[in-house]
Amino acid sequence: MKQETIDRIRKFTSDRDWEKFHSPANLAKSISIEANELLECFQWDEEHYNLDDVREELADVIVYCRNMLDKLNLDEDEIVNDKMSKNEAKYPIDKSKGKSNKYNKL
Amino acid sequence: MKQETIDRIRKFTSDRDWEKFHSPANLAKSISIEANELLECFQWDEEHYNLDDVREELADVIVYCRNMLDKLNLDEDEIVNDKMSKNEAKYPIDKSKGKSNKYNKL
Amino acid sequence: MKQETIDRIRKFTSDRDWEKFHSPANLAKSISIEANELLECFQWDEEHYNLDDVREELADVIVYCRNMLDKLNLDEDEIVNDKMSKNEAKYPIDKSKGKSNKYNKL
Amino acid sequence: MKQETIDRIRKFTSDRDWEKFHSPANLAKSISIEANELLECFQWDEEHYNLDDVREELADVIVYCRNMLDKLNLDEDEIVNDKMSKNEAKYPIDKSKGKSNKYNKL
Repeated sequence: MKQETIDRIRKFTSDRDWEKFHSPANLAKSISIEANELLECFQWDEEHYNLDDVREELADVIVYCRNMLDKLNLDEDEIVNDKMSKNEAKYPIDKSKGKSNKYNKL
Repeated sequence: MKQETIDRIRKFTSDRDWEKFHSPANLAKSISIEANELLECFQWDEEHYNLDDVREELADVIVYCRNMLDKLNLDEDEIVNDKMSKNEAKYPIDKSKGKSNKYNKL
Repeated sequence: MKQETIDRIRKFTSDRDWEKFHSPANLAKSISIEANELLECFQWDEEHYNLDDVREELADVIVYCRNMLDKLNLDEDEIVNDKMSKNEAKYPIDKSKGKSNKYNKL
Repeated sequence: MKQETIDRIRKFTSDRDWEKFHSPANLAKSISIEANELLECFQWDEEHYNLDDVREELADVIVYCRNMLDKLNLDEDEIVNDKMSKNEAKYPIDKSKGKSNKYNKL
């Protein structure tokens, strides 16, 4: 995400004095709530979804993830790279290629 | 997110031939599932969470969001800015300052 | 659910002195968390699920719903019948038959 | 739940010819979606929730759980008792009393 987009999200929160609502737990709830509004786009029909709705709900999830990164002073690239290192170790290419099994069932 | 981090996520998927599992609906389910592993960090105690767990679960949500952006050819900054424009209109500063009410109850 | 099953759930909680963790908010989080463990049974393949896993995760959701009914002194039949009356009014048979549209898009 | 309430739920579905939408996966998504509408009642304030909203959203979760029991021909008492037996074994009273630790951290 570009710095100006990150700044816009931060300004939106601070302009409204909403930092006080952004406890990590409240943000975790919010990410789940928005993730389920996204899921609702695919509730009964997984093929014929409304792309405008998907765009909006996915954006909501992403914004709350950014709020949580900010709240906890986390660096997005750092936590993602740390997790990708774990994922790469848990899912060796030769064992997991083309298979959707969970790592403990490979 | 830096381009090299995005590339690493993409390579992880393509190395394992997992694009075929990444339907938009499956990714929506995955975002919700990971969001709830994040929520589990705050299930019974919202103050004393394990930051390492939070980092990992938040990273999982972010990675699946990136997968969905890729799958649908969406630009993260574009969809976030479009949504922020809506949010700014729905939550005027003077009406929403310091309040957590939903826009339809302001 | 039979009264003896309800009693068993209640005894499980009280034997462990866990009522103190069962705030309505914590139970709402728990229902969502367990609902997503259920959803995980269908994450990548919606046809070939493990029925034993589905049984267990669905039971977990049901148990937390019972905990919340108890916590809030709600009668299951009463709240379900109240909601069914609303659903029946929102989804008239002639308009909704065979269609999965949300009530505001009928 | 009383048999007449169960029958009312079944009639609601069959009157609308909605069994065709009730795949186990779609019902799992629906349980998660409704669980998160319930969670939304506690998103920013866990103490001052709207009880009418909580009643309705909890009822929605319960109705979809009933739909899934029906779809998979599961007996609610049987699956709950089977799970309670596991829970009782995983959380011995002497080790778990008064503690919210997960079983693998007792």
